[in-house]
Amino acid sequence: MYRSHNCGELTAAHINQTVTLAGWVQKSRDKGFVHWVDLRDRYGITQLVFDESRSDNAVFELAKTLGREFVIQATGKVIERESKNANMATGDIELLVTELNILNPALLPPFTIEDDTDGGEELRMKYRYLDIRRSPVRNALLFRHTVAMAVRNFLSAQGFCEIETPYLIKSTPEGARDFVVPSRMNEGQFYALPQSPQTFKQLLMVGGMDKYFQIVKCFRDEDLRADRQPEFTQIDCEMAFVEQEDILNVFEGLTRHLLKELKGIEVDKFPRMTYDHAMKTYGNDKPDIRFGMEFGELNSVAQHKDFGVFNSAELVVGIAAPGCGEMTRKEIDALIEWVKRPQIGASGMVYVKCNEDGSFKSSVDKFYDQEDLKRWAEATGAKSGDMIFVLSGGAHKTRTQLSALRMELATRLGLRKPEEFAPLWVVDFPLLEQDEDSGRWHAMHHPFTSPKPEDMKLLETDPGAVRANAYDMVLNGNEIGGGSIRIHDKATQQLMFKYLGFTEEEAKNQFGFLMDAFQYGAPPHGGLAFGLDRLVAILGGQETIRDFIAFPKNNSGRDVMIDAPSPISPEQLKELNIKLDLK
Amino acid sequence: MYRSHNCGELTAAHINQTVTLAGWVQKSRDKGFVHWVDLRDRYGITQLVFDESRSDNAVFELAKTLGREFVIQATGKVIERESKNANMATGDIELLVTELNILNPALLPPFTIEDDTDGGEELRMKYRYLDIRRSPVRNALLFRHTVAMAVRNFLSAQGFCEIETPYLIKSTPEGARDFVVPSRMNEGQFYALPQSPQTFKQLLMVGGMDKYFQIVKCFRDEDLRADRQPEFTQIDCEMAFVEQEDILNVFEGLTRHLLKELKGIEVDKFPRMTYDHAMKTYGNDKPDIRFGMEFGELNSVAQHKDFGVFNSAELVVGIAAPGCGEMTRKEIDALIEWVKRPQIGASGMVYVKCNEDGSFKSSVDKFYDQEDLKRWAEATGAKSGDMIFVLSGGAHKTRTQLSALRMELATRLGLRKPEEFAPLWVVDFPLLEQDEDSGRWHAMHHPFTSPKPEDMKLLETDPGAVRANAYDMVLNGNEIGGGSIRIHDKATQQLMFKYLGFTEEEAKNQFGFLMDAFQYGAPPHGGLAFGLDRLVAILGGQETIRDFIAFPKNNSGRDVMIDAPSPISPEQLKELNIKLDLK
Repeated sequence: MYRSHNCGELTAAHINQTVTLAGWVQKSRDKGFVHWVDLRDRYGITQLVFDESRSDNAVFELAKTLGREFVIQATGKVIERESKNANMATGDIELLVTELNILNPALLPPFTIEDDTDGGEELRMKYRYLDIRRSPVRNALLFRHTVAMAVRNFLSAQGFCEIETPYLIKSTPEGARDFVVPSRMNEGQFYALPQSPQTFKQLLMVGGMDKYFQIVKCFRDEDLRADRQPEFTQIDCEMAFVEQEDILNVFEGLTRHLLKELKGIEVDKFPRMTYDHAMKTYGNDKPDIRFGMEFGELNSVAQHKDFGVFNSAELVVGIAAPGCGEMTRKEIDALIEWVKRPQIGASGMVYVKCNEDGSFKSSVDKFYDQEDLKRWAEATGAKSGDMIFVLSGGAHKTRTQLSALRMELATRLGLRKPEEFAPLWVVDFPLLEQDEDSGRWHAMHHPFTSPKPEDMKLLETDPGAVRANAYDMVLNGNEIGGGSIRIHDKATQQLMFKYLGFTEEEAKNQFGFLMDAFQYGAPPHGGLAFGLDRLVAILGGQETIRDFIAFPKNNSGRDVMIDAPSPISPEQLKELNIKLDLK
Repeated sequence: MYRSHNCGELTAAHINQTVTLAGWVQKSRDKGFVHWVDLRDRYGITQLVFDESRSDNAVFELAKTLGREFVIQATGKVIERESKNANMATGDIELLVTELNILNPALLPPFTIEDDTDGGEELRMKYRYLDIRRSPVRNALLFRHTVAMAVRNFLSAQGFCEIETPYLIKSTPEGARDFVVPSRMNEGQFYALPQSPQTFKQLLMVGGMDKYFQIVKCFRDEDLRADRQPEFTQIDCEMAFVEQEDILNVFEGLTRHLLKELKGIEVDKFPRMTYDHAMKTYGNDKPDIRFGMEFGELNSVAQHKDFGVFNSAELVVGIAAPGCGEMTRKEIDALIEWVKRPQIGASGMVYVKCNEDGSFKSSVDKFYDQEDLKRWAEATGAKSGDMIFVLSGGAHKTRTQLSALRMELATRLGLRKPEEFAPLWVVDFPLLEQDEDSGRWHAMHHPFTSPKPEDMKLLETDPGAVRANAYDMVLNGNEIGGGSIRIHDKATQQLMFKYLGFTEEEAKNQFGFLMDAFQYGAPPHGGLAFGLDRLVAILGGQETIRDFIAFPKNNSGRDVMIDAPSPISPEQLKELNIKLDLK
């Protein structure tokens, strides 16, 4: 036995007991005749004391040689501390060490192993095993485990069965995002790594498993944006004999359970919002509703004067920034520059200051009188002391721009509180969206999503207007889960592939196995998938998901610690019957 | 709502209630004026009744059109059955249907969806979604979930934290068994899929996570033998500040918990057996100890006469087959042919019949007298009525052959009872084993396993005699788990790579990240991994693991259902900067 206790459990109740601890040297303090060491493990920190008068001389001298992060084993008597530390679980006691054993020395770490470290991100990723010793990262990994266990136990109790689906699956020609895996046993052929277990979970429904879930890795070989991983984890679920309402109820229940169990927060029944409403009110299909700042459409009250910019716009839309009436001209100009950055893309911005006396001062006073501006204030819900910001242009683009501004202002105003949780459902998503360049329609969710029966007739005439039985769960401005009721008959699925531009041949080659399955008695079914990484980060009150992943990859998809990916050996290539095209 | 109840829950308590069920037509029976349908879902079967006098005519006529596996929804009143079926949970009632809705018709399935099906294995794999509807397969998948949840809850309660390790890792030049994955973002470079998360879990120990586990997919691109999958699932565990004894205790606790919870079986403390003892006594490092038939070494009592075959042999060894004394000459000859098959490779076999009167009759009576044979009986523990079988030759080869015979005889004699569980630990494995062709030594477990300190001095002089701190958990003749105490300092790890024939350069390139980590304060650590597929199958009382996997691959690594692997498109190849070497 290396230890009798861990470094987080000794209290006054253990005084006078002889114990053995093992762990890492967090830091040392030396006072000449007394030497203290903070010993750390996963469970906490315990103070070791070495005393010239009370410790064996060899032990005392050895203690003075201990460097940071040395791995040691210490035996001694638990004694009461002279200066207690109420902030530490073990703050009432210390260990008067009689035996000391260096289990492994350590080089000086390249950054400090403290809550606030001096290490930059790339360095901490290279030495991830040291980063994990820091309590924010350690606690994040422990929290992730707690979330995953809570999800599993909740779903199991509801009759869901976790079923593993394969990782080595079929590669699809459209799968530009598929990672492919050459097979040694089947020369010249490739598997793909799944972007999701979608078709397999549908087959499990055809197979009568009724309620499936899986916490499962998914893979996407695409340009990574910050905080997105080439391998990511999904809570993947599917149910048979259900309508949308059944699914929303079950997974709303799951999220309420997690908020209650993990955060001690009770939330009301989730509000539901159509996609159209979300876009019109927040310019976004994943609105953060922890705060207001809802869009006010101003076309009717801004297009009757001589202001050509507004008159020629498809949409004039504004928001009221609460309490921002006192912004300086310089601050306003900086904000106008902010919306004009290429990432946002606005061509300009109009502002209206709502004075405390009920009057208004705007950047377009030349065109609009106080009565006009009062109507703008009514439309945006602005109060005295607020500032209204107005954008105009093409409807979709302008909404997206104003949404970015809304989120930025809310962040600056401290309205996006990490420990406040405002979930909602966004429903009635469009079935299809049009590629701007090619004009081709593709599935907004995926090709297995069912259209609303009443909209089927629009498929030929107005594809963009067809709504799907699709829904997203949104939490604090993030889509944390999404799903749909699926198509479950071959004819409709075939029709869908046709509308998506598949030839009959392509559809059959790629998804024939699924359409075949639908002919052998497929039940109505639907489901959803949560992004575990994102869910854990939000519940953990963080913006970044990387801290919640033990071994994340950087923005180039590289694991800098183990140097992966790396060149493959010529022998491996040869055996796989492929070669690198070294142009 | 598609249903108010499922097909497994209605009992006499529900009589007179109006309910709605949904599911699959298992079968129909027609008596002209009454028509019965067995309706099936995951939860059970409920009998529907349609009655000319009591049912609506349209419903009655529609019921007669229902084919096997049609998906239907039926509403009606729960009534008492005339002829109750005590073997069915719902056997007391039936549903008198008033509304019937065909949710999806079904083609005639290519094999019968019954517990005993007429479908061959390849056909059932092609239509796996239909196979899953059969209760043996469905129950196997549900059982697997139950096992996995029990493992997770047990380990979590013991302070283990489940941590996800990456799937896209570094490819190793020796990794002839690695699946490789070209990276689109890092041109010309490849990830590998992990054969196990070994190095990552060791890094988590260096990172102070203390107790790690993960139920995780692992990948091996090698020739598949029956009942082995290219992707398989491991229960992977690691602990810091532990000795072998600590690990054996924790995981013995896990297995006892599983046997208790899932099978209602209490087992004693696991016996421990050295590798040497297992090989000498059972010819096998994973002995099935549900039955005896221990080896008796006969060199001292068989090499003193003129029988050249024995006299020239390194080892003469026998077993007593209980109650086999009455085997006919024909049966014995067949068994001799069985051990002479190339898969076993014996050149012949001697037998001794132990007569009821205490005398012996053998195939070598020409060389040995009754006193000799009596000593053989003593050495093998043979009793009157038994038959002794004796093999001879090179020690290792002969033991392996006799082990095969022992298992075969036990199977024939019904001694390998699926519902009897006899776990044990095999310990003190050799550190190294020698490749017969190249003479090169390689790690029996893996290169991170620590040698026993007292054997370190033999590394130079007698590598084969060095024992490792390695252990296997064996259950009913299967290795279900194995692990070791790891090396945790750079110098020893470097030495190990040197003995394994790595150049310093190779060792650094491949495992430099791990050896670097050891310099920054690595704690003593060790762990083990269970094969979940095998564990589930054994606990489930089955020989085959395939039934416990939702979507298994066949012996060529092919998923016949979805036709994977499949040829990759030229566009994908081009984008990946690789090409097929189509010789």
